[in-house]
Order: sequence, then C-alpha cells, then structure tokens
Amino acid sequence: MNYRAIAKSLGIVVFIEGVCMLPSLLVSLIYRENDAKAFVYSIVITITVGLLLYRIHAKSSNFYTRDGFAVVSLSWILVSFFGSLPFLLSRTIPAPIDAFFESVSGFSTTGATILQEIESLPKGILFWRSFTHWMGGMGVLVLTLAVLPSVGASSFHIMKAEATGPSTEKLVPKLGQSAKILYTIYTVLTAAQVIFLLIAGMPLYDSLIHAFSSGGTGGFSNRNLSVSAYGNVFIEVIITAFVLLFGVNFGLYFQILKGNFRNFYRDEEFRFYIGTVLVSVLIITLQLSAKGIFTFGESLRHSSFQVASIITTTGYVTTDFNLWPALSKCILMILMLIGASAGSTSGGMKCIRILLLFKIARREVAKIIHPRAVHTVKSGGRVVDEDTLSKTLAFFFIHFAILAISVLVVSLDGKDMTSTVTSVIATLSNTGPGLEIVGPTGNFYSFSVLSKLVFSFCMIAGRLELIPMLMIFSPNAWKKGNI
Amino acid sequence: MNYRAIAKSLGIVVFIEGVCMLPSLLVSLIYRENDAKAFVYSIVITITVGLLLYRIHAKSSNFYTRDGFAVVSLSWILVSFFGSLPFLLSRTIPAPIDAFFESVSGFSTTGATILQEIESLPKGILFWRSFTHWMGGMGVLVLTLAVLPSVGASSFHIMKAEATGPSTEKLVPKLGQSAKILYTIYTVLTAAQVIFLLIAGMPLYDSLIHAFSSGGTGGFSNRNLSVSAYGNVFIEVIITAFVLLFGVNFGLYFQILKGNFRNFYRDEEFRFYIGTVLVSVLIITLQLSAKGIFTFGESLRHSSFQVASIITTTGYVTTDFNLWPALSKCILMILMLIGASAGSTSGGMKCIRILLLFKIARREVAKIIHPRAVHTVKSGGRVVDEDTLSKTLAFFFIHFAILAISVLVVSLDGKDMTSTVTSVIATLSNTGPGLEIVGPTGNFYSFSVLSKLVFSFCMIAGRLELIPMLMIFSPNAWKKGNI
Repeated sequence: MNYRAIAKSLGIVVFIEGVCMLPSLLVSLIYRENDAKAFVYSIVITITVGLLLYRIHAKSSNFYTRDGFAVVSLSWILVSFFGSLPFLLSRTIPAPIDAFFESVSGFSTTGATILQEIESLPKGILFWRSFTHWMGGMGVLVLTLAVLPSVGASSFHIMKAEATGPSTEKLVPKLGQSAKILYTIYTVLTAAQVIFLLIAGMPLYDSLIHAFSSGGTGGFSNRNLSVSAYGNVFIEVIITAFVLLFGVNFGLYFQILKGNFRNFYRDEEFRFYIGTVLVSVLIITLQLSAKGIFTFGESLRHSSFQVASIITTTGYVTTDFNLWPALSKCILMILMLIGASAGSTSGGMKCIRILLLFKIARREVAKIIHPRAVHTVKSGGRVVDEDTLSKTLAFFFIHFAILAISVLVVSLDGKDMTSTVTSVIATLSNTGPGLEIVGPTGNFYSFSVLSKLVFSFCMIAGRLELIPMLMIFSPNAWKKGNI
Repeated sequence: MNYRAIAKSLGIVVFIEGVCMLPSLLVSLIYRENDAKAFVYSIVITITVGLLLYRIHAKSSNFYTRDGFAVVSLSWILVSFFGSLPFLLSRTIPAPIDAFFESVSGFSTTGATILQEIESLPKGILFWRSFTHWMGGMGVLVLTLAVLPSVGASSFHIMKAEATGPSTEKLVPKLGQSAKILYTIYTVLTAAQVIFLLIAGMPLYDSLIHAFSSGGTGGFSNRNLSVSAYGNVFIEVIITAFVLLFGVNFGLYFQILKGNFRNFYRDEEFRFYIGTVLVSVLIITLQLSAKGIFTFGESLRHSSFQVASIITTTGYVTTDFNLWPALSKCILMILMLIGASAGSTSGGMKCIRILLLFKIARREVAKIIHPRAVHTVKSGGRVVDEDTLSKTLAFFFIHFAILAISVLVVSLDGKDMTSTVTSVIATLSNTGPGLEIVGPTGNFYSFSVLSKLVFSFCMIAGRLELIPMLMIFSPNAWKKGNI
C-alpha cells in the first residue's frame, strides 16, 4: 500500500467535506438557531485535518487498484466521522456512536436513523443531514476526480471502485470530463425536482431537503411522518417520478445528451427495472384493495410511492407498510435486495446483476438439455465474458454471506427475527426502513453499540459494492510486501 | 427426450416401491390394526402400474443426461404419489394434497408434517411414514442402479443427478458395485443404530422408526413430542451421534473400508462440518445457560441434539427451540441452509459448497490486492476447475431464487414473516421444522393447497439439488427436437 499517497488523497476528500459544510452553516445563520457554532467548529476541524493530510508528501508515485480501493473505503469512513461532528458538537445527537451511525447513514445514502424525533432539531442540522445524502449519492470521490490526479492517483482506479454495477463503460475518454458530465446531470435533475416541489406547494427549505435526499436515493426527511406529513398527492407523484429517475443508470442520460434515444428504451436493465416496478405496483395495488385496506385509488397511490421509494433504496414513506399483508411486505423486502440500476445512486444488488444471474441459471438448465452446445450469456446483444459472470455470481454470495454474519451479530440484541433480519437488509441495501422495530414508524435507536457498528459496516460495504470494504479488513492488504 | 425409456425406468422404480410396502403391511398385520387393507390395495395398485410402465418398449437406446434427470425428478414425484396411497386409503390423511405432502416429505427425507396428532395413527402407517425416509435417504434410484442398465439406461447419468454435492468421485469403477457398497454401509449403520437404541431402552418398533428416520436424515417420529417423549439422555446421545454419522460423505466410509483412515480426518469438508457443529453447540450452550433458560448441562444436552438434528437436516426435536433467544435461533436457521456433507443423506446446500464459496470470496479480494498473480481455488490440495466453481456459485443463486419466489407464493397465506420464510427454508433444505407456526410444536396443516404444492416442489427440488426439477419445468426440455 502506498500509505502516503492514500493519506494525501484522503486529505483532499476531507478538505472538500469541510467546504461542503458551509451551506449548512449558512442555513443555520439564516434561521438564527443555536447550531451555527457547531458548524463553525466542525468546519475548522475538518478543513484543518484535511490540509494536514494533504501536506503529506507521497514518496512513490505507484498507485495500484488496492490503493484506490483503500482510498474509497477509508474516505467513506473518515467522511462519516467528520460528518458526525455537527451532530455531536450541537448536542442534537449526544452519543458518538449514534452521531456516527447517522452520518454513515447519510453519506451511504441509506436514510436509516437513530432519531426518534426529527422536527425539533435545528434547521441547519437537518439541512446537513440531507446534504450528506446528496454528496454521498454521486460520491464524494466522483466530485474530486478532477483533483486527485494531481497527487499522482490514477483516476481510473478510483472510478473502478466507485462506479456501481458489474462493468464500467467509459462515457468519454477523459475521466475528469465524464465526472463533470455526471455531476451536471445530477445537479440539473436535483434543481428540477426542487422547482417541481415548489410548484406543488412545498416550502423552499423542505423542497431542498427532499430533493437532496431523493438525489442520493437516501430518504432523510425533515418531518417525523416523512413524505406523508404533506398529505399532498402532487408532492408524492413528483418524488415518485424523481426517485425513479435517480434509479436509472446515468450513462443512459449521457446517451440521451448524445441523441441516442433508442439506447434508452432498448436497454435491458432499464426495461427490467421498469418492468419490476410496474409488476410490483400492480400486485400490491390489487392486494391492498382486495383486502379492503385502501380504496383502489389510494392503493395505487401508496403502492406506487412505496415501490419506487424501496426499489431505488430511498426509503421515504407515505404509509406504514409494516401493516400491509404478508405478500406486499415480502415484495418490498425483495425489491430492497434487488435495488435499482447500476450506475445510479441507488443501493442493493442492482437490476443488471439480477438479470445476469437469472440468465446464468437458465444456462445451467440449458447445459443439461444440450450438453454439447456452446452456451454463452448475452446482455444487450453482446456476449458477457465469463469473468464478469463469475464476479456477478461471487457478488451475490458475498452479499448474502455479509447479510448472514451481520444477522448473527445483531441477533445478540434479542429483537424479533423480522426486525433483526430486515434491519440488516435495510442497511446493507442502503434503503433505511425495514419491518417491525425498524419499520416506517420505527428507528434504529434501541440497538446496541455493537449492532450499530455492524449496521455502519453494512451501509458502507453496501454503498461501495462490498469488495473495497472487505479488502481493508483483510490482513493481506496491509502486508509489508504490498507497500 | 426418450419418453419410452424414461417410462420404462419409472416402471421399475414404481414396482420396487410397491414391493417396499410389504414390510409395512407385515407390521399392520402383526399389530392387527385396520390399516392392512389399505396396504394391500396400495401394493396391488403400485405394482400393477409399475409392471404396466415396465412393459413399454423403448424404441431408441439413446439415453442422455436430460433423460436421466427426467427419470430422477419424475420418479420422486411418482413415488411420492403412490406413497401417499396408504395414507389416503386408510383415511388416516383424508385430503389428497395432505397425503401427497406427507409422502413427498417422507421420500425427500424432509420430515415436515401436516399431522396434528401422530400417536393415534395405526402402527403400519407410521412404519411406512418413516420407511419412506429410509428409502428416500440413499435414493430409490441408487437402490435400483443394478436394475436400470437392463433397459439401456446408462447408470452414470442417473448417478450424476442422484449423487449430492459439486463433484462425484467414483468409488469403484463399476457403478452397480459402488451402489451395493453404499447400500451395505447404509444398512449396517441403520442396524447398528437400532441395536444401540434397543440397549438404551427404546421399544423395538420405536427403534426401527427412529433409525429409519435418522438414516434418511428425515425426522419423522412416532411420538407427538418427537425424541423428547422419551426423556432419555442415552437415546438422545445415540440419535445425535447417528444423525451426525449419516451427515458424513459416504465416500469417506468407503475410504475407511479401504484402510485410508487419514483421508477421513484430513478431509476439508469433514473438518468444516465438525467444526461448524462444535462452534454452534458452544455458542448456543453458552447463550442458553447465560440467559438461565437451562442449566449448563441441560443447555449442552439440548444444543448438541438440536445442532446435530438441524445441520444434518433431520429435524428431530427435544425442546421447543422456537422459544430460544434470537442468536440461537438464527444459528439454527443458518445451519439449515448449510446442511451437512455432500454424498450424505442430508439436505441443504452442503458444507463443501459453502467452503468453496468462502474460498471464492477470498479470491475476489486477493485479485484486487495482487491483480497480476494467478488465483486458483484449491480443495483438498487440488485445484478446483473453474467450471465447478461456476456451478457452485450458480447453485447458490438458484437456491436463493427458488427460496424468494416460493416465499412470495407462500406469503399469500398471510402468515407472519418468520413462519413464511422459515417454512420455505425448512422444506427447501429438507429439514422439517422451522420457526413459529412451523416450529417444533407446530406443523404445516394450516397452509393453503397452493402453498403445500410449493412446499412439495421445494422438498423435491432441494432433495435433487435443484437442477433436475428446474429442468422438467423448462419447456425447452420437452421440445420435439430433443426426443
């Protein structure tokens, strides 16, 4: 490992985080609440540490994939640590583990909370809480792609760990340029959502918060009742539409910018994603109305919102789906595991992986029927190489292995089985709410410190697609020979 | 598909099943209960159908892997169908779907029951119920390996579908011979268990039933309270030891017969299997005694019995583990998914697969740390080929895909989440009991016909390691061109 280059890269990331606290300071000054001082201290500490780390001189310019993965994992941990300072220093979240959990949940765009009461918190703090989603969404590191190369860190390695999904198609030859394009699309979509929400009658402050949390598909709201607090069907439709848009592979938007509209609706993953949403909404709507829980119209309204919110792993709620019938709840849990598209801000395993996995399963059966034929797996008309298939299969196993081991640790808390299992699924998939104790009306407050650490690990591991986090916990990665 | 050769093979299997009903008839005659007539009718029907199918003349001698897989899947379905006749005709289980479920549960060595009261049933019926476990255990087809070649069915194809685990090492060059060796080891172990149980004070009838159910790692008992009815620690120790022995790869016993004792304890899967048992027993014992649920001694007694019973997917119970703390329950659920060794009579995913999967996960991390090195996965000192690894990974996904889809269908019944999920795990892994409604004191009676069909599919699919059952439900397999 090139410790010095890693530290230098981390310095830049931490410095940028400090700068990104300024808008929240501004909000706290505007509303004249008692959280401004906490932001000033946090900014000073964060920027100072960032600058100190940046001053480290990298002796070697060697920067391998493992170094890139280390930067990515450690950034998310460090950024979450410094991101918890405003919560701690303002005493809005006095316990360090809770503040860290809330910050990890923000930057990993999970939206799981330990807060039992939200509306009494200062406006600057709530702004920061949702802003962490927005920053986390496209990745603090994608934002810094133009800066990192100056320390000799090859951007490609960072991009490899950062970009979600099984394979990264480069958008444009120069990485700095594509980062800027993605950043622009992201900002424009967020701004559009703010405008739509304002038109629908949401206050500006709330609009910003909900657009930030939608952009990162995070789910933090400034209202105790989440989106249901507004009881406004237009707001719900806007949020449904935008979280679905943020769950689309951003590479497809780039295709539109280049005029390739065909690629958009011909994209297999996009079709699978939209198909899954439609089928899920249909089944849940039918069940909710058949069971007389809501009228047909209300069933459609709530099922559309919840399906969009859960498959994109946002986690906003308009109704307590914990009270829904078993099938509807099971569908939501499976959508959580699946997640939306690769190359989007959503979490979960991603639609393209699930699609590939089903194709692999079909191939296993085909191999028995026609043992002598050549069996390939195609995606978008092209043959997918065996290495990508193997990585996708391994990802699926690793996902469930982390899930199982985390469930074992969390079960020490003695909660019921459903809460135990869904709390891990909801954090590993970066969704936020699960069922029972961690359901729409619940939160993660009552878990032990150990469980909160496990949840934090799951949130970051899920956000970074598992391998980078496994790597930094692997003793092999830190052996002398690898320096 | 070679329909005629398949039908002929099925005829032999069904005929043998009819013959295997004779011991149960004998039991019913000895105890002079009212079930003898049901057995006479069942035997006449089963043997007649068997002979009629056997008379079909195979036009072609082509017999491919797909035909072998079809024979295996269809045998299990047909045998379960005819196996349900004694239950139906004796009116001990009047509903056809329930009788079918019970028979599938028997032949698949699951041990899940729809019976709410067992002890009032005639002794011949209960004998048959446990005898189906014993037949299912090593496979009706392994028993018939010496017969099938006479219809031109290459035994190897049958063996490929039948033998559990990722790779089949041939024991001796001639398959008929190795089937006989396996059959002998199986019978000797069962006889030994009967003798030990008799010595411990169990009546002969009960000893036979419990030895049959242990041999197939099934779990049907003739007592409502399962093994706890005896309250005899010696009986519990004997059953614990024997189910663990039946969970060992039978190939290893063959090694012992050849004098290779070293291979036994050097075998990676065996060590993983025993290690998992020991660690699980330790953790559960500590938790049960720390929580004051039992004394340390009692904790050790119950945890040893339950861990052995669950990891081997037998499903006998000595205590209501549904009342255990969350961690202990979670461990049992994970043991269910894992199962014991490949090449044993147990179900689940098998230890060797889990071991390989963890090695693959470790390799994914190693690839990042040392991208230029060659990364192979070794087992028992030898490199495992990529095709086996890929099949193992695909198996893991298919297992969870079937689990998820089954959970969705079963959730239509509106049971609680834990019952819904664990009922599917318990049937797909061929364990029997799950948690809550299907826990140690519960049963599968209250589920809908649709759910019982799904459970039946899961039990057979789990028993045959998924692919054969997926194949017969694949339209491609039945296309004209494949005949």
